[in-house]
Amino acid sequence: VSELRLLDDRRTLPIGVFDSGVGGLTVLHELLVWLPHEDFVYLGDTARFPYGERSPFELERFAIQIADALLVRGAKLLVVACNAATAAALPALETHLAGAAPGLTVVGVVDPGCRLAAKATRNGRVGLLGTTATVSSGAYDRGLQAHAEALELVSVACPDLAPIVQAGFPFDRRVVDTARAYCRPLQAAAVDTVILGCTHYPLVAPMLQRSLGPSVRLIAAGAAVASEVQGVLDRDGLANRQGGEGRYRFLCTGDVAGFRELGTRFLQMPLEDVQHVDLDAEMAA
Amino acid sequence: VSELRLLDDRRTLPIGVFDSGVGGLTVLHELLVWLPHEDFVYLGDTARFPYGERSPFELERFAIQIADALLVRGAKLLVVACNAATAAALPALETHLAGAAPGLTVVGVVDPGCRLAAKATRNGRVGLLGTTATVSSGAYDRGLQAHAEALELVSVACPDLAPIVQAGFPFDRRVVDTARAYCRPLQAAAVDTVILGCTHYPLVAPMLQRSLGPSVRLIAAGAAVASEVQGVLDRDGLANRQGGEGRYRFLCTGDVAGFRELGTRFLQMPLEDVQHVDLDAEMAA
Repeated sequence: VSELRLLDDRRTLPIGVFDSGVGGLTVLHELLVWLPHEDFVYLGDTARFPYGERSPFELERFAIQIADALLVRGAKLLVVACNAATAAALPALETHLAGAAPGLTVVGVVDPGCRLAAKATRNGRVGLLGTTATVSSGAYDRGLQAHAEALELVSVACPDLAPIVQAGFPFDRRVVDTARAYCRPLQAAAVDTVILGCTHYPLVAPMLQRSLGPSVRLIAAGAAVASEVQGVLDRDGLANRQGGEGRYRFLCTGDVAGFRELGTRFLQMPLEDVQHVDLDAEMAA
Repeated sequence: VSELRLLDDRRTLPIGVFDSGVGGLTVLHELLVWLPHEDFVYLGDTARFPYGERSPFELERFAIQIADALLVRGAKLLVVACNAATAAALPALETHLAGAAPGLTVVGVVDPGCRLAAKATRNGRVGLLGTTATVSSGAYDRGLQAHAEALELVSVACPDLAPIVQAGFPFDRRVVDTARAYCRPLQAAAVDTVILGCTHYPLVAPMLQRSLGPSVRLIAAGAAVASEVQGVLDRDGLANRQGGEGRYRFLCTGDVAGFRELGTRFLQMPLEDVQHVDLDAEMAA
């Protein structure tokens, strides 16, 4: 009886989601569509944004620190809603969690994107737009290889694109020209499928689609991530059985008002419960 | 020779697109994706926004007035990027153009949406979110019937939704609750496909998708409209053969600065050339 009771309690716990900023809200959106009865706690590490230029060592440290902060807040499952952190830190994070929270699953955004892209391409040439950290990790080369050996991947590092989105992108000529320059090598390589390899990029999908043209299919992993999370919850008997809509809370390491304003705009939902969190102080405590 | 020369000249003319406000930019976006070499002139009748509560008589008058303004500016084809104007005024507009500009094609947004919805539904129950004018016109009932007789259409008039978007939607609790209330009858009717029956609505598709859940497919007609326009240009030998990117200009009947700011955000592209136009003065001239 007490084990059943514990299981029942775990079901009502929130799902933890994190990113360097507001980009992960594109993944959270899909989670809200697919899993409306779940509670969520989202952490945006805005004080250390952007992750895209960080070293693998730093990203491992950040990811583990944030995972611990989300575990303290009762997360029953973790979603790394950041491609750079997934690409650099998912193995280290899994190792850490095997000790810190045995049985807890962590879902990243790289493999679902690879699966979708491998399925979508018809000519076998796939493009990747990502941050410098994501591209140089080689995670997408390995991930695509696992789904279809013969695919050719053309990767473009886009150091300026996530910061443009995170800044609330006033779309001026410079922004459009920057996006176009990133897309040019993909057009030259005649890819028919482009992975949006940063969770910020779906927010500028219209601009990218215009640069790439109508015959290129853009791949955002959010819905596939949500579907994978649903599968894990079902498998582990962890789905929340509450009838109503879940509760959502937000944590950020930087400016709360800025996060609330931008997040509300991007998620198309008022971010009511946003709190500042000091990860270093929590670690020390 | 002179006839060939004339045809060649017509190819370089712009495509005219109009809406009551910025919603039609969701259609223009698809036109830019599909037809990057075309020039466009877009007119937003912001001074008389919203169209959704206007009478059929008013909408016919507005549509004809705007068509004339776009013809004066050399439009070689017209796109009515507004569901209310298409639903109420397309036949009158076609009659007017048969006299004013014989051979000029006008493309609306209702039939492409009906075609997509008829193709998408699996259970035969289709929902429509639209303005009061669009819903009460019965245009979608007739349009769906033409594509598949056995379909059931559940229509919901959403008088507040386009004004929320046109106001730049700060997403507060009231906005989310309003959208949810509009979606509730569609959920009760177990529709599996929902037509976004106003060109403003794709801009709040994430919010609507969360209200409707993952199993409901949202239908925006933009891409199908662009494909239809492409077909007309090819058929009539009117496609622009310029190598580079087309030029875009914008006209609005209301505040220029507000249109530029909102339009830049929604189109994800700087609206550089925006001019005020006084339609009544043009008519009188």
